Amino acid sequence: MAIPKFKDMERAYGFEEVALVPGDTTINPDQADTNFTLGKLTFSIPILAAAMDGIVDPNFAILTSKLGGLAVLNLDGIQTRYEKPDEVLAEIAQAPDAKVTSLLQKIYSEPIKENLVGERIQTIKQAGATCAVSLIPANTKRLAPVITEAGADILVVQSTVTTARHISKSYRGLIFSELCQMVPMPVIVGNCVTYNAALELMRAGIDGILVGIGPGAACTTREVLGVGVPQVTATMDCAAARETYFKETGKYVAVITDGGIRTGSDLCKAFASGADAVMLGSILAQAKEAPGKGYNWGMSHPHPALPRGTRVKVGTRASLKQLLFGPTSVTGGTENFVGALRTSMGVCGALTIKDMHKVKMVIAPTIKTEGKYFQAMQGMS
Amino acid sequence: MAIPKFKDMERAYGFEEVALVPGDTTINPDQADTNFTLGKLTFSIPILAAAMDGIVDPNFAILTSKLGGLAVLNLDGIQTRYEKPDEVLAEIAQAPDAKVTSLLQKIYSEPIKENLVGERIQTIKQAGATCAVSLIPANTKRLAPVITEAGADILVVQSTVTTARHISKSYRGLIFSELCQMVPMPVIVGNCVTYNAALELMRAGIDGILVGIGPGAACTTREVLGVGVPQVTATMDCAAARETYFKETGKYVAVITDGGIRTGSDLCKAFASGADAVMLGSILAQAKEAPGKGYNWGMSHPHPALPRGTRVKVGTRASLKQLLFGPTSVTGGTENFVGALRTSMGVCGALTIKDMHKVKMVIAPTIKTEGKYFQAMQGMS
Amino acid sequence: MAIPKFKDMERAYGFEEVALVPGDTTINPDQADTNFTLGKLTFSIPILAAAMDGIVDPNFAILTSKLGGLAVLNLDGIQTRYEKPDEVLAEIAQAPDAKVTSLLQKIYSEPIKENLVGERIQTIKQAGATCAVSLIPANTKRLAPVITEAGADILVVQSTVTTARHISKSYRGLIFSELCQMVPMPVIVGNCVTYNAALELMRAGIDGILVGIGPGAACTTREVLGVGVPQVTATMDCAAARETYFKETGKYVAVITDGGIRTGSDLCKAFASGADAVMLGSILAQAKEAPGKGYNWGMSHPHPALPRGTRVKVGTRASLKQLLFGPTSVTGGTENFVGALRTSMGVCGALTIKDMHKVKMVIAPTIKTEGKYFQAMQGMS
Amino acid sequence: MAIPKFKDMERAYGFEEVALVPGDTTINPDQADTNFTLGKLTFSIPILAAAMDGIVDPNFAILTSKLGGLAVLNLDGIQTRYEKPDEVLAEIAQAPDAKVTSLLQKIYSEPIKENLVGERIQTIKQAGATCAVSLIPANTKRLAPVITEAGADILVVQSTVTTARHISKSYRGLIFSELCQMVPMPVIVGNCVTYNAALELMRAGIDGILVGIGPGAACTTREVLGVGVPQVTATMDCAAARETYFKETGKYVAVITDGGIRTGSDLCKAFASGADAVMLGSILAQAKEAPGKGYNWGMSHPHPALPRGTRVKVGTRASLKQLLFGPTSVTGGTENFVGALRTSMGVCGALTIKDMHKVKMVIAPTIKTEGKYFQAMQGMS
Repeated sequence: MAIPKFKDMERAYGFEEVALVPGDTTINPDQADTNFTLGKLTFSIPILAAAMDGIVDPNFAILTSKLGGLAVLNLDGIQTRYEKPDEVLAEIAQAPDAKVTSLLQKIYSEPIKENLVGERIQTIKQAGATCAVSLIPANTKRLAPVITEAGADILVVQSTVTTARHISKSYRGLIFSELCQMVPMPVIVGNCVTYNAALELMRAGIDGILVGIGPGAACTTREVLGVGVPQVTATMDCAAARETYFKETGKYVAVITDGGIRTGSDLCKAFASGADAVMLGSILAQAKEAPGKGYNWGMSHPHPALPRGTRVKVGTRASLKQLLFGPTSVTGGTENFVGALRTSMGVCGALTIKDMHKVKMVIAPTIKTEGKYFQAMQGMS
Repeated sequence: MAIPKFKDMERAYGFEEVALVPGDTTINPDQADTNFTLGKLTFSIPILAAAMDGIVDPNFAILTSKLGGLAVLNLDGIQTRYEKPDEVLAEIAQAPDAKVTSLLQKIYSEPIKENLVGERIQTIKQAGATCAVSLIPANTKRLAPVITEAGADILVVQSTVTTARHISKSYRGLIFSELCQMVPMPVIVGNCVTYNAALELMRAGIDGILVGIGPGAACTTREVLGVGVPQVTATMDCAAARETYFKETGKYVAVITDGGIRTGSDLCKAFASGADAVMLGSILAQAKEAPGKGYNWGMSHPHPALPRGTRVKVGTRASLKQLLFGPTSVTGGTENFVGALRTSMGVCGALTIKDMHKVKMVIAPTIKTEGKYFQAMQGMS
Repeated sequence: MAIPKFKDMERAYGFEEVALVPGDTTINPDQADTNFTLGKLTFSIPILAAAMDGIVDPNFAILTSKLGGLAVLNLDGIQTRYEKPDEVLAEIAQAPDAKVTSLLQKIYSEPIKENLVGERIQTIKQAGATCAVSLIPANTKRLAPVITEAGADILVVQSTVTTARHISKSYRGLIFSELCQMVPMPVIVGNCVTYNAALELMRAGIDGILVGIGPGAACTTREVLGVGVPQVTATMDCAAARETYFKETGKYVAVITDGGIRTGSDLCKAFASGADAVMLGSILAQAKEAPGKGYNWGMSHPHPALPRGTRVKVGTRASLKQLLFGPTSVTGGTENFVGALRTSMGVCGALTIKDMHKVKMVIAPTIKTEGKYFQAMQGMS
Repeated sequence: MAIPKFKDMERAYGFEEVALVPGDTTINPDQADTNFTLGKLTFSIPILAAAMDGIVDPNFAILTSKLGGLAVLNLDGIQTRYEKPDEVLAEIAQAPDAKVTSLLQKIYSEPIKENLVGERIQTIKQAGATCAVSLIPANTKRLAPVITEAGADILVVQSTVTTARHISKSYRGLIFSELCQMVPMPVIVGNCVTYNAALELMRAGIDGILVGIGPGAACTTREVLGVGVPQVTATMDCAAARETYFKETGKYVAVITDGGIRTGSDLCKAFASGADAVMLGSILAQAKEAPGKGYNWGMSHPHPALPRGTRVKVGTRASLKQLLFGPTSVTGGTENFVGALRTSMGVCGALTIKDMHKVKMVIAPTIKTEGKYFQAMQGMS
């Protein structure tokens, strides 16, 4: 008699386990069209800067917009808690390791000021830049009218795991279908990793979805909670939901892969997995213009009894422009992300990001070779 | 002509190879119900402390009971061989490495005293705590009346590999169906890893089963004997036996995953694999209140010609309460196990442990990244 | 249109990728019957010592026989090239690393003396021990009458890869069917790893087959030639040939796994893969009684243009008796191989080696944990 | 309802993941025929030296031809930009690490001289050697008449990813069908990794195809662009195209595996994957006669904004003759490549390279063992 099975499990894949297959035709990289569209807005590069205090301040948002991308300003952090955020950011950068956790706790206990919410948005808008802002679900209903009035272009509502149905006895959760009708701008929601959850959020009327929960094996969500789906599979599943929803309604919801991207290689694989855009975090924290001055740290509202966000030294690598467009000074793929994407599109024969969605991928795990010498040999011969 | 196959082999999975998939709904962690039921007894947290001399003494048992869990007192060890176990435990903790093996051999050659068996149980009962005790099969028939009279609440009969049918020419083995009828308390038996062996033990009338033989690749059972099944598959197979037996009889036997759990992540995956509770060993040996004083060591009756239990320095990390409920001082998931479970249940949308059994898992192996820097990046961005 | 496939490839497994599943019944280890039968000869332990000059000399052969096993004396090496082999062996043990390769080349260029072939066999026989000897194919026809006359009990004909059909323009290869009729003793042939090659050799009339070509990923055969099949799959395939041949003829040919066994765990898995016995090499070179005095080195006739056998320092660990029967002084499974086998048979419920052939195995790869601390934890809790 | 799948992915394999299975017959290595045929030319060893400035100059080409192989001279590099290339090569070898990148950029900005193209070819031809030359697609149309006139025997047109259809707005791409008709010599084109792209190139009339894009996990193409197919699968897919094209037309196009080969083992696996020949890079840069004097560096025309070719120190190991035919001084398979191939053909029972195409392979990943000691044990016992 066959032994009954308690549960089926499918294999999920991460960036480091797949590779793109070159196309049957190739195109010149300069013909690759990297446009990304969200609602009625179009961006020339499909890259978003993550809503983290160490990465995006109004200046960074303006610069990113000028370069063709989109930076999301965190409205639950230092920029809206302090009149003079630069002083607070300098304090974090200068704090010794031993004192930084308690310093962060103190800094983030300051209340959010609604007037600062408006001011930050206006600074960005007055510079002629597209303004995207992020809120956590708990603050969204209160601040949605403020950001609307201030003229924000895009609203991002983000928490670690987001579903259209959240069960709580203590408060009535945020209803995304109500929110999407309330605010006159595209709404991006996340994070999410499954077909069903993504489809349900799309049916609530959102315009973009952030994909990524516990993407890396070393991610805290995965190490502490055991929860997470590697990004290739997560992106594919949410992209499948986008296709289903498009067939149902004719509306195209943007799938944005958020987290786990470390190199140009990872970025290109995100698009081949079905992403319309990617959100970059610590990579952009390494830009000279990033307000974190070589440091990055986590969200402002950690679970009180789980590990709190730690300050990570990421270093300062190059200007944002060089990180995005090169020239690169390194061989590992951690600079010139747009150049890598264009070249990858060229060898895969993809004229547009939607063509990249059709590029074939193989499962080809990274296997450690025995030393740098052989790595160099493989790269060359 | 096809070449005949000598044997089929299926893939078995361990904690480090799977990940939980977030739910289509989410719930607030404070709504998660972590109750665990064994016979007529209910515990507010589904965690058992392993019957090891370095972990559980009567004080630790009382404390664990007050915190909602269940500690199992080893009745084949120091507590029942010595009037004053604290002196013996201190001797072990203070012994230099080179002398500890012969010291352990000497200490465990002292006979078990029946009067101490009763006294230890009464100490726990008089404090109002639930009293679970463990015996090895060879001592069970002799001591079962003693523990019954002393008022023990739960009997655990444990050896490395336990089956309902043990063949021996030298003695008549313990018959579990007779034992379950003899003692007026729930009986937990183990360890076991397969559907058939688990089902046969359930049919003998037991109330709980301990799952885990050679769970880790580095486990002695696996390194020396080649025997072992990784814990996700072992738990799933025993949970499948529980479902079969429940359909047959309407009786629900508790499946308790024992061994291989190192982090909150592993613990959450045990429940998603079908566990009703987990048994923790060296993790709890790190509690300030553990009698091992920062050390842990193996069972008292090793095979005379195979490697004997070694004393392992586990260190002292935090109070039992903090280990279980936080707040955690670390980011690796080795503290605040109940908090991790509640949060994991929240993002998986599981209101109860039985809901956790239905949570989807994917196969997503841990792949080593290249350094702490990237690990931190993945956790944050 | 589907893309045509150039070639199918199946997965092959090694010891480190599988684990034994405990049985539905268990037995006391002292009831396990480890007998191994070859033709009309029966041995109480299913372990052969490899025909290497650093492992087996007449004294070692006599000792192994007394302990119940079988050592194979290499008749193409030092014992038959030199009157006083102990002096030559001492020279090898004392040579500095830089000079050992040229020393080995010089030593093995001395011709084989037929009178020494006879003398070595008689020494073993006079001590009342079973005498197994090995020859390379090129020397077999010439020396077969000599060993027959001297009273050898078992003939092993061994080369890296052996098939029943070898194509050569320079000489007429050894015909195994002729050899098996010529010599009045069981003939063991190897090495071999596939069903077809094994079956063809069995049909030539052999009594035992050595399994193992390039068993380990780090093996020279595999590193230099790319050739090799991991031992679990190789043993299973040759065991399948044994079953086929037994059905055809009623004759049971012994399958002997040779190579790649490093621990008790590997040894137990070889039997569950279908082995009737195992041949151990460097493990036994670590015996106090081994003539290599802590060193081991390869075969005498390497390919002239490929890497020559290097002397490897294996160290001296314990007496042969302790290596086989314990007690063990270590926890890694590298001593007490028979004890490990008996205990493994016990937890798997196998009364005989043929019962071990039926034990279930799972694919459960070894995954490196992060440090000795966790390894110890997993082993205990 | 089943969740729709966004994309299917197949597993692709690299050299380090497979192993060859010995044959049912074996042959003496001296009977192995390693001939390689390209058009009407036949070579006694199926090895090509890569068209890199650090590997092939006219002297090296002459020497390789005398040894039975084929070296490809790079006509887009130092040999055709400078009258006295040896002085330039010495300059590169002597440059300090910090200055070599800018030196390489300066050196490769010198224009190509058509008269030098002719002279280099004539030098090789006058020595009685077969002359193969390589061009990048952009230079091919202009220089094809020059090489034809100078008497080149084989033309290699090579870029990272080559397809029969390249889309560019800035220039009309090279049309391979036109080229093959224009030049009166065999044309080898690459690189390529898929069935469809290979078949389309074959249908354009080429005589050989170079297989290999991002072969190694550590390869720049794969690390930066995410693009690449491991070499076993890539070679198999292109070999399948060769079989299809042969069935269609009766013309046999040579499949040449280029890149990722580090040892004799890898080389043998390339042939079992379907290769008719292999192209070696950094391995041959280690020959005493290589013009790079212990260094190797990448192609001359890197993408301006992606990482530029770096100079890699490969060291000088042995003469080309010894690298190809031994005797070897090492055990890792990095010398005596032809000897390894012959021995591997012997144990696999392959009389010709086409027989090697039929050799069985298994998937048998390299698993790191715990130390050199065990590696040595596995190799010997």
